[in-house]
Amino acid sequence: MAELAALAPGALVTSGADAPPDLTHDEALGAEPVVPAAVVHPTATEQVAAVLAYADTHGVPVTARGSGTGLSGAAIPHPDGILVVFDQMAEILEIDEADMVAVVQPGVTLERLDAALAPRGLVYPVFPGEYSASLGGNVATNAGGMRAVKYGVTRHQILGLEAVLAGGQVIRTGGRYVKGSSGYDLTQLIVGSEGTLAVVTEAILRLHPRRPHQRTLLAPFATLAEVTGAVPAVVNSGIDPYLCEYIDLVTMAAMVDQLGLELGVPPELREAALAYLVVGVEGHSEERVDDDVARAAGVLADAGALDVFVLPDHSADALIEAREKAFWLAKGSGADDIVDVVVPRSRIDTFMSGVARLAADHEAWVAGCGHAGDGNVHLSVFQPDAQRRRSLMRALFALGAELGGAVSGEHGLGRTKSAYWLELEDPAKIELMRRIKAAFDPRGILNPGAVLTPGDTP
Amino acid sequence: MAELAALAPGALVTSGADAPPDLTHDEALGAEPVVPAAVVHPTATEQVAAVLAYADTHGVPVTARGSGTGLSGAAIPHPDGILVVFDQMAEILEIDEADMVAVVQPGVTLERLDAALAPRGLVYPVFPGEYSASLGGNVATNAGGMRAVKYGVTRHQILGLEAVLAGGQVIRTGGRYVKGSSGYDLTQLIVGSEGTLAVVTEAILRLHPRRPHQRTLLAPFATLAEVTGAVPAVVNSGIDPYLCEYIDLVTMAAMVDQLGLELGVPPELREAALAYLVVGVEGHSEERVDDDVARAAGVLADAGALDVFVLPDHSADALIEAREKAFWLAKGSGADDIVDVVVPRSRIDTFMSGVARLAADHEAWVAGCGHAGDGNVHLSVFQPDAQRRRSLMRALFALGAELGGAVSGEHGLGRTKSAYWLELEDPAKIELMRRIKAAFDPRGILNPGAVLTPGDTP
Repeated sequence: MAELAALAPGALVTSGADAPPDLTHDEALGAEPVVPAAVVHPTATEQVAAVLAYADTHGVPVTARGSGTGLSGAAIPHPDGILVVFDQMAEILEIDEADMVAVVQPGVTLERLDAALAPRGLVYPVFPGEYSASLGGNVATNAGGMRAVKYGVTRHQILGLEAVLAGGQVIRTGGRYVKGSSGYDLTQLIVGSEGTLAVVTEAILRLHPRRPHQRTLLAPFATLAEVTGAVPAVVNSGIDPYLCEYIDLVTMAAMVDQLGLELGVPPELREAALAYLVVGVEGHSEERVDDDVARAAGVLADAGALDVFVLPDHSADALIEAREKAFWLAKGSGADDIVDVVVPRSRIDTFMSGVARLAADHEAWVAGCGHAGDGNVHLSVFQPDAQRRRSLMRALFALGAELGGAVSGEHGLGRTKSAYWLELEDPAKIELMRRIKAAFDPRGILNPGAVLTPGDTP
Repeated sequence: MAELAALAPGALVTSGADAPPDLTHDEALGAEPVVPAAVVHPTATEQVAAVLAYADTHGVPVTARGSGTGLSGAAIPHPDGILVVFDQMAEILEIDEADMVAVVQPGVTLERLDAALAPRGLVYPVFPGEYSASLGGNVATNAGGMRAVKYGVTRHQILGLEAVLAGGQVIRTGGRYVKGSSGYDLTQLIVGSEGTLAVVTEAILRLHPRRPHQRTLLAPFATLAEVTGAVPAVVNSGIDPYLCEYIDLVTMAAMVDQLGLELGVPPELREAALAYLVVGVEGHSEERVDDDVARAAGVLADAGALDVFVLPDHSADALIEAREKAFWLAKGSGADDIVDVVVPRSRIDTFMSGVARLAADHEAWVAGCGHAGDGNVHLSVFQPDAQRRRSLMRALFALGAELGGAVSGEHGLGRTKSAYWLELEDPAKIELMRRIKAAFDPRGILNPGAVLTPGDTP
């Protein structure tokens, strides 16, 4: 502790025992909180570099933490390790309107960034649902969210990084440009590596023009297969939806009942509908958005929607917020685990039929919603028996992989999903990733227990 | 030769001496052609795997080649090595309209892919100018082109790969989805690695709806600084231009004179204009495109354009084609080398002022055009003396780096730009990249001489 404090003058250094309990966990369901040996709140990159050089020399594990809103346990500290908390490195360093980039420290939250960009008519288009999340955490997990159908995910917005390597060297990757073909893309390799390759201390984010007009359509369908079938038509119609979400019967009922949503869907339709598609359009003029709403409604009707509702703004906002908060709804309802499998979007209904079968086989209850536009399925799994639940989770992930998908679309593997992934993934790729890990972090100090080691499956 | 033929039954195997001279080079200016020891034209991934396993065991260099249209010498073979030519692996394996992806073999050309997509109302939006280029080559160099201002570059479109590792193992990365947070992103690491990490045998490409209506505006400006100043306004206006190019006085004069372009710019304006901005807009309806053209014209006029011309379709096509063929114009005019530095787009005019100064200092002549929307500057360098030219090139790259840019935006380093890059890049990053290279290719058989070794600077 004294050595750390001397190495990082200006940083707040405490023992793990003195740190607030909030720092012992993130939002991963069922993961055990861990008290680290020490907590450092750096105020500058050099302090992070000094801490990492020290940790590397002494073989001490280091875990980086942003806001702690992660859902896979990647920010859970190591009991013998140092937790580096970025709450004191939370500055928006620059908003460069000419190059349309923002330069941020890792502790900046999505909420603060959005508040700074809105008055300038700009947007950072990654909206993963939890806006108290930090940009550093978003970079670590390659956060996605509802607008990926139009804008892609975090990795598509990260143009460059400042990062500290395990030995304490500081590197800068990329820059304020979209194009680059000058050596290996270290930026893209570090994005999504969940703090296991390097610790990010600054990011250059791509900004986009903010479309001031938005409208939301809600379409009930008789089956999820019809919802899945409608998606390509919606995406390919040229209306360029910025969200395209499905919500299943059970999740919709929970939203309506628990949150008191008023969506204007008459009872007889609610009884006939097994799934809903929510489509959001946006634009620079009211007129164009009106036109796109009309076209989207036509496409949805042609695709077999039972009806199409253009929601009043307050209902639309409430629905989108409810959708964003679906995790909290699941947690509040006592879900035992959550899943964010990604599959090709054409396979969502096949996947969900399989899920229903697997849930029945495991006497579990599974409900969900998801990003229909990009095949990212969010499920809440209710089965209190750990062994049966793990068997179900394993089967769900195997089914996703069989359909051409992956274990996690946006939450990351962290400590709670890595074991499932390690079982399913091609051993040749895992060996290659281990060699890449060793190329960055030969002593294995960066976030051990996450991604490449089977962590703590709840 | 006999061993190779036995290992890869079905593949055409010839000696380098028997191969057509075209296979000894790509389009890099001034690079020396090299006759390889052997040439293999595989017809299937297993043959590539067998060849790589053999090469790895015997320490034989392997160079992959698509159409050979590269501009940095990454496809130039090694004299003791095997050249793997993908002209027999050139199938479009699938166009999946539901997931909006195409699955292609590396030898497929952009031209053929576009012809297959157009009737379906889809587009693969990377247009790097040379449409006989192969997708395999595009993946290797992370090809860019004019539409990057709207759609990004190759890496933004590549969702997954099949690739053969140095030892002959075949891996599959990514899939038919945009989101993924399941381990390190091998796809993005292999894209742009110029055949030094793995040999790509299949790619999953993201497709977009094809906008059938397009219009082109041409705006002469008194100075390049005004062109650079106009770009953020154009990009941020919400018209979402799909191209935003500048052309300097000299390049425009060469295009008009040598290609007989009729652009309707009166002589007095041509005399006053030092640079031109070309803006392309596209959309799903004629009406919207008309509206965007009017808005773009207003933005350009406000930004100080001397005039704004909405080009008739045939003139627009001729101008864009001329711009795409600027490399051939440079080659035909006897350029000694070419540069595709990328800088933050706000720094283009600063960079170009510096370039003029450096050219004068080196008694050289430099002209160019570039992707104003994304800061990618294309220059033709005329200075026949190799030593002075290299000194000028070094200075140009150093200036680009000083302004926050990189050596190559889209051509890659290959063999002809790697020496400059190795001089300028942070040694900590180069060492890290060498360790990554060793993680993939411990014996160094994949494209030695490119990227991480100072190749043959012309």
